Amino acid sequence: MRNLPLSKVYQLLEPGPVVLLTTASKGRANVMAMSWHMMVEFTPPLVACIVSNADYSFAALRSTKECVIAIPSRELARKVVGAGNCSGEDVDKFKRFGLTAVPAKQVSAPLIAECFANLECKVVNTRLVGEYNLFVLEAVKAWIDAAQKNPKTLHHHGYGEFSVDGRRIKLKSTMP
Amino acid sequence: MRNLPLSKVYQLLEPGPVVLLTTASKGRANVMAMSWHMMVEFTPPLVACIVSNADYSFAALRSTKECVIAIPSRELARKVVGAGNCSGEDVDKFKRFGLTAVPAKQVSAPLIAECFANLECKVVNTRLVGEYNLFVLEAVKAWIDAAQKNPKTLHHHGYGEFSVDGRRIKLKSTMP
Repeated sequence: MRNLPLSKVYQLLEPGPVVLLTTASKGRANVMAMSWHMMVEFTPPLVACIVSNADYSFAALRSTKECVIAIPSRELARKVVGAGNCSGEDVDKFKRFGLTAVPAKQVSAPLIAECFANLECKVVNTRLVGEYNLFVLEAVKAWIDAAQKNPKTLHHHGYGEFSVDGRRIKLKSTMP
Repeated sequence: MRNLPLSKVYQLLEPGPVVLLTTASKGRANVMAMSWHMMVEFTPPLVACIVSNADYSFAALRSTKECVIAIPSRELARKVVGAGNCSGEDVDKFKRFGLTAVPAKQVSAPLIAECFANLECKVVNTRLVGEYNLFVLEAVKAWIDAAQKNPKTLHHHGYGEFSVDGRRIKLKSTMP
């Protein structure tokens, strides 16, 4: 995986792909599936997300204030749904779903080797955590796997139904 | 357009489509393109979004606390990009781009007839507006155009480049 300029992170998350969120607490890594996230600022890249206090990842995210957002392509759909349908309280999801944890540079949460992009993030605002489980993250380091060409991402419509990215179109626009 | 149960709103926004946001202030309607939004809660459907204070829509949204999120299909791509590349301060975008404003039921902002879904929204939280231009909305009424079958939505990668929804896949999952 090679470095991706932080100014390009929004181009990965703005289209709304399903992502995997990793955390690590007390020496134990966990991963969940997440679709409730959005960009908040271009540079430094700020990202808001909802991590429910019913999710096992919630406590780790709140206490360590670190996570990784890993973006899976369509080929990982079964692993993503699998990770979304069980809890890290009961199982080691990396092991169960054959996901490879790779040490990150700036956070304790691991990267996921199989994902085409990985964003190391720190929690920068928790003011809406109490009311909405809404965290604001800053991406402090971004990785891209250049070997995965034109990855197709997944977009969740509920209960395991996804739209897969189709063709790309390009219209004239000056807006980032 | 017919009524859509509020409990299904998340299935439209969770996949991360580009949307149009309408506002109305002092008898004048406006529309902007938006990709920075996410679900916050299923029912009642809460949606967070970023509307920059550099956008002409910002003042109308903050003062009226009302808006409509209209979801365009791929056929409207040129109108979406057009609306995203000019300001309501200068032009009547409904007129310029041939978008039809239809009165909503519960908010002053108009629906857009050409969009396959329209969500009437009220601002319910402004605590992060000062810091991040982040509004939390509640969808109070939702409309769906049953005549538009299997609409393909747009997912923005920056500068007018979009992924269009491709095929749908269905995996076994108990998660909403």
